[in-house]
Amino acid sequence: MKKIYNFSAGPSTLPVEVLEKAQKEMLDYKNSGMSVMEMSHRSSLYDEIHNEAKEDLMKLMGLDEDYELLFLQGGGSTQFAMIPMNLLNKDDIASYLITGSWADKAYKEAKKFAKPEILASSKEDIYTYIPEIDESKMNEKSKFLYLCVNNTIYGTRISPEKIGKLNKPLVADISSNILSEKYDYNKFDLVFAGAQKNLGPAGVTIVALKKDLIKETREEIPTMLSYKTHADKNSLYNTPPCFAIYVTGLVAKWIKKMGGVEAMEEINKEKSKLLYDFIDNSSLYKNNVKLEDRSLMNIVFVTGDAELDAKFVKGAKEKGLENLKGHRTVGGMRASIYNAMPIEGVKALIDYMKDFERENR
Amino acid sequence: MKKIYNFSAGPSTLPVEVLEKAQKEMLDYKNSGMSVMEMSHRSSLYDEIHNEAKEDLMKLMGLDEDYELLFLQGGGSTQFAMIPMNLLNKDDIASYLITGSWADKAYKEAKKFAKPEILASSKEDIYTYIPEIDESKMNEKSKFLYLCVNNTIYGTRISPEKIGKLNKPLVADISSNILSEKYDYNKFDLVFAGAQKNLGPAGVTIVALKKDLIKETREEIPTMLSYKTHADKNSLYNTPPCFAIYVTGLVAKWIKKMGGVEAMEEINKEKSKLLYDFIDNSSLYKNNVKLEDRSLMNIVFVTGDAELDAKFVKGAKEKGLENLKGHRTVGGMRASIYNAMPIEGVKALIDYMKDFERENR
Repeated sequence: MKKIYNFSAGPSTLPVEVLEKAQKEMLDYKNSGMSVMEMSHRSSLYDEIHNEAKEDLMKLMGLDEDYELLFLQGGGSTQFAMIPMNLLNKDDIASYLITGSWADKAYKEAKKFAKPEILASSKEDIYTYIPEIDESKMNEKSKFLYLCVNNTIYGTRISPEKIGKLNKPLVADISSNILSEKYDYNKFDLVFAGAQKNLGPAGVTIVALKKDLIKETREEIPTMLSYKTHADKNSLYNTPPCFAIYVTGLVAKWIKKMGGVEAMEEINKEKSKLLYDFIDNSSLYKNNVKLEDRSLMNIVFVTGDAELDAKFVKGAKEKGLENLKGHRTVGGMRASIYNAMPIEGVKALIDYMKDFERENR
Repeated sequence: MKKIYNFSAGPSTLPVEVLEKAQKEMLDYKNSGMSVMEMSHRSSLYDEIHNEAKEDLMKLMGLDEDYELLFLQGGGSTQFAMIPMNLLNKDDIASYLITGSWADKAYKEAKKFAKPEILASSKEDIYTYIPEIDESKMNEKSKFLYLCVNNTIYGTRISPEKIGKLNKPLVADISSNILSEKYDYNKFDLVFAGAQKNLGPAGVTIVALKKDLIKETREEIPTMLSYKTHADKNSLYNTPPCFAIYVTGLVAKWIKKMGGVEAMEEINKEKSKLLYDFIDNSSLYKNNVKLEDRSLMNIVFVTGDAELDAKFVKGAKEKGLENLKGHRTVGGMRASIYNAMPIEGVKALIDYMKDFERENR
């Protein structure tokens, strides 16, 4: 088997142990004679997978029974519509912090269903920092504040320290750093995450929301886009993406085994510090993000020369360091080092960066 | 490994060859060092999987370049909303043939967005037959006729012979018998199928529609519920359910290798005939569906005694014949014998039915 390190921003690398377990159980889950893909979603065997994944995720997130955790489909892009459809009436105002193109997409989608407003934006500085979260500047009629906690494309994050307890409800996209470091998710009223970055395969979206937000939706909302539809049926209103939920559950168990979110945070801080320190001390590579807003998950860097960047990415691939090309909208390089990326991967990347710097001085 | 036959209505049995291939490639797809679950959906390696699955399915369905095939999420239940949202204006009329609770759900969901009408219904006879498709009875303003071609719960199907070329566009749910026998899908303007019955794992929905139906949707339609969003980006507007698409692609290749839809039809007719003939000649079991409307995929039967039915299902499970319980709304038994169910499974079921009949006369 070819040995590589996969720095893809998503779908992204998964723990080898998880893949090995899924492989082993592929044709015969727990001596049932069935693959998880073949099981009725109404069977007790699948129920156990579904409920264990749900409970493990809620425990890892530190959420109690005031919250409901849903397994939905359609990715973050579907949440951009579901959030205003479920939480707002047509004339309601909500505040959006624009920290990147995903937050901007969420804001624009909300315009279809309500009256979102921009609280602050760092667009003019190509999203290289997180604007201040100043509740006093929010429209007092605003129904919630929407944040994207980690910005995959730009390599920024809103650190746990920056998220105080607000008076307004807090809604957040946590797709790319869920369970990577300790956040007090009880400060949030609704969080969502596409699994394919830090949690599992593409095809399942985790939504955790306060139960008091789950209400009958307006008549014109599609049944499948109502949180109540799914909450009332424990995410089994219709056939859920069973296999994606199963693998996500395996990842949750792997995180627990590794020592939980605290252990993930420790290793993620070590991994990102290694890489940021190397970049900061290098004369070739540069990271343009404001120090306190740097992401632990997605580390962006440039040489300042687009041709040299392309050469870097090509050479890296030849060394088995895959998917280091930055997002097409910003160029440069991006190393996504999610929970499942071992520290050896980061060290191998730094070794290559050193060699490349020496050869291209 | 435990050897069973899985008669689940969905998610359901998959070809062993497909599961073995997915197992083999789980940690290392084509010497890439990556699982399909770990691949960027923007990579050339994934592109190949995505496009081959699309092309193979279109070829198997006999669709030409007038059609677009989409990989969506959210199951048939999401299509119940997307169809009227995309094809109708608020005051538009569409006709629905009510052949079971899924068609009825589609009709009810359409009421949120337009003015659907019931062309005919077999509800009063517990959906044991398919009402006549009489275009002359359709409201002349109707924009399309909606059908559910195979009714999983009731064991009925609209046979290919019953689907003539209509003057109105034809929209159909083909979830539970896609690629099981030869239909001229070019007679349809839009068909959809949740993969988890006859095509692959849960988590991906196939939609094939005529390109001239793909239009800019109304402002208030969520971006993710517009066919145009997905058609414009070859189902890669956001991260698709890559692994589910990959397995569906493997199933399509398996069907091709087995001889295509013609070969599937031949064996499916043989399998269903064996079981129907046995039921019809038995003094214990009874199938209440009108002969010409019998499904080849879902074969329902009862003993006429609910306690005996329960005993049958329990005893079957002990013999490795799983998931034979009928849908909770109708009771009795149901054997779902999709493409991937080998004829040996049907024979094993009949052997058990014989023994059970002898012991419970």
